Amino acid sequence: MESESKKYLEFVRSRKSIRNFIFSKIYKDTILEILEFGRWAPSGANNQPWRVHIVINEKVKTMLKEHTKYGSIIESAYVNLIVFLDKEKSYDRVKDIQGIGAFMQNLLLGVHAQPGLGAVWIGEILNQKERVNELFKLDLERYELMGVICIGEVDKAIEQRSQKARERRPIDDFVEWY
Amino acid sequence: MESESKKYLEFVRSRKSIRNFIFSKIYKDTILEILEFGRWAPSGANNQPWRVHIVINEKVKTMLKEHTKYGSIIESAYVNLIVFLDKEKSYDRVKDIQGIGAFMQNLLLGVHAQPGLGAVWIGEILNQKERVNELFKLDLERYELMGVICIGEVDKAIEQRSQKARERRPIDDFVEWY
Repeated sequence: MESESKKYLEFVRSRKSIRNFIFSKIYKDTILEILEFGRWAPSGANNQPWRVHIVINEKVKTMLKEHTKYGSIIESAYVNLIVFLDKEKSYDRVKDIQGIGAFMQNLLLGVHAQPGLGAVWIGEILNQKERVNELFKLDLERYELMGVICIGEVDKAIEQRSQKARERRPIDDFVEWY
Repeated sequence: MESESKKYLEFVRSRKSIRNFIFSKIYKDTILEILEFGRWAPSGANNQPWRVHIVINEKVKTMLKEHTKYGSIIESAYVNLIVFLDKEKSYDRVKDIQGIGAFMQNLLLGVHAQPGLGAVWIGEILNQKERVNELFKLDLERYELMGVICIGEVDKAIEQRSQKARERRPIDDFVEWY
């Protein structure tokens, strides 16, 4: 029997970016479960400096898509999680941003845990972060856009066809033993 | 039967900081499996900007402990993972640091997947990041200390006694629905 640790490794290793979705409703309970994964992320001094706008409304998606070249992914995703750093909860900029990274990775794992669902993390939209704040009428001094997670039902036909080998540096390439 | 997604949620949710260890050898294969979790973390443009110094040697731990008030944890951990940002692989500072956060969270999950092992992420050592570079003779221009993950066999007696309720903001506190 496969050991438990290998099962969790396979879970983490098999997560990948999904950019092709088919329309299928995602229930609120599922979205809440995904957020629950994020909620338990670690952060410096446990400050949990995240804020999330959950976008399902088609008009909001249409406005949002103007601010990134990946707009078609935002539009085809059933739900988009717009993640901001809440600077009022700030503690140390480097640690805050690391905490946001851990939070977003947990959200991606939360999506991956749901049968049939997939997600992609869009960072390119940071080029227009001020515009995204305007759209949500969010104070620029307080909130800083950190990324968007687009979530939907995986379009298996396209994803299988476009399957490229996923690449990572071998461990020996980034470690030194002492 | 518990659903698969609930099992993974429980895995992610039950991970917590462990600061009390008993001495017990951790085999190289186990350390490599933990690094394998990290290796599959997402990063902006897949730049994987991480570098890790794996510290098992007691003399190196003794030198390292001078640079943080959590030195006793570093000393009692069987292995410490010293994580640096490799600026030569840099792409965008915010996204690089988010990627490091995702990487470190994956490492913590990798430890949590190993029966009996626990870990804590130490960020306070960043206050003396230049000294840590000196210790490893690492170019300050190229490598920036991002944190340390201390790993060891959980001292269950102490951890159970010192069990505090773990706290996170409720989801409603950080989301807005659109």
